[in-house]
Amino acid sequence: MIRLFIPHDLAAGARLDLDEGQSRYLAAVMRKAVGDAVLVFNGRDGEWRAVLAAVGKRVVTLDIAAQIRPQATGPDLDLVIALVKRARLETIVEKAAELGARRVRPVITERTNADHTRVDRLQAIAVEASEQTGRLDVPEVLEPVKLEKLISGWESGRRLLFCDEAGDAKPVLEAVGGGGAWAILIGPEGGFSPAERDRLRALPYATPATLGPRILRADTAAISALTLWQAAVGDWR
Amino acid sequence: MIRLFIPHDLAAGARLDLDEGQSRYLAAVMRKAVGDAVLVFNGRDGEWRAVLAAVGKRVVTLDIAAQIRPQATGPDLDLVIALVKRARLETIVEKAAELGARRVRPVITERTNADHTRVDRLQAIAVEASEQTGRLDVPEVLEPVKLEKLISGWESGRRLLFCDEAGDAKPVLEAVGGGGAWAILIGPEGGFSPAERDRLRALPYATPATLGPRILRADTAAISALTLWQAAVGDWR
Repeated sequence: MIRLFIPHDLAAGARLDLDEGQSRYLAAVMRKAVGDAVLVFNGRDGEWRAVLAAVGKRVVTLDIAAQIRPQATGPDLDLVIALVKRARLETIVEKAAELGARRVRPVITERTNADHTRVDRLQAIAVEASEQTGRLDVPEVLEPVKLEKLISGWESGRRLLFCDEAGDAKPVLEAVGGGGAWAILIGPEGGFSPAERDRLRALPYATPATLGPRILRADTAAISALTLWQAAVGDWR
Repeated sequence: MIRLFIPHDLAAGARLDLDEGQSRYLAAVMRKAVGDAVLVFNGRDGEWRAVLAAVGKRVVTLDIAAQIRPQATGPDLDLVIALVKRARLETIVEKAAELGARRVRPVITERTNADHTRVDRLQAIAVEASEQTGRLDVPEVLEPVKLEKLISGWESGRRLLFCDEAGDAKPVLEAVGGGGAWAILIGPEGGFSPAERDRLRALPYATPATLGPRILRADTAAISALTLWQAAVGDWR
């Protein structure tokens, strides 16, 4: 069934108008009619069954019928990803949503080739992937920041899994452990500079980890690291 | 450094001509000149340093200098993947190469939307990904077969990790165990039919496993399953 992420408050008996984009999607693309059902969620009130009450050219009206799932919170996991080319960055955001990350933080490193990053477009990709993967919230995509700024503003208590392709680090399954807030850091395709590696390895909250014996592209590394973290200490257990 | 997968036998002192495609790539695209070095491998003789001995318009000649790494064999892991749309299938082949699968076997299921599959194109993608990821062999991409034919010809002793999104299965890290030959099976985007699920679950060599609480696209599921297998019983330990 179609799932839509919407901004409205959700409660039994509520009636609401969808915006023009979602209205056109239901009416013109998916050919939904009065009486058809969809699922809706807003990241706060769980997932609800809703029924099309009116179908206009630009506005579809929904009646909120019944809650299907109460709101639930996934693990507190950020993906910090060095900027890569647009297509690969979009893939990474899609996969971060599927794999349950709560935030995606693009970061600028010495070896980053930073195109202009359209955060609004990445956020739209996160919404669509969240609708399709069945989660009850949407990961937040933040504005890119430089690595040093990210470190200087690091949130107290959040641990950092630093995927270090150059090193002698432990496998991810051995490196992670314990719950709480985590972030996974994936470097640029050219790797971190030696100075950046030293800086990252010296952070008291950072744990270096390796992703196997082969060189991985940034999207593969991000998906593999998110998967292993979820399997070891996240909601895949 | 540039890595090329070539068919020639490799030994110290050998001199060989590259084919036209690889010659043009080195000469015209990468602007390599006589005396420049590249790495070559053939899946049999390890990885060698080679030096450009002559650069012609259509033929680049290499002198094979020194072996850098002896041949090594990765885990005996097949990826059996239900056919999905072309772009996603190409991504899956690229990732299977990065993640160390030995073979990719496309399979046709009840809910498969099978376009025409260009196996030669998929094989070329596997070669390019293998060159970039640093492995010493290239996964073989087989012709698509129907699921029932795959099962009827199943190789004795090969275990099957059946990623079952509908079920009550164990997480992959608990489901896999022991070495030997394995295959990972990823279903189509619409899932296996109930009859197919029953058939697969009844196979004595099959172990069902779950990939977490969210719905994953086929490419994400393939990457996640390959990652977890490598981390649990493969060469990521």
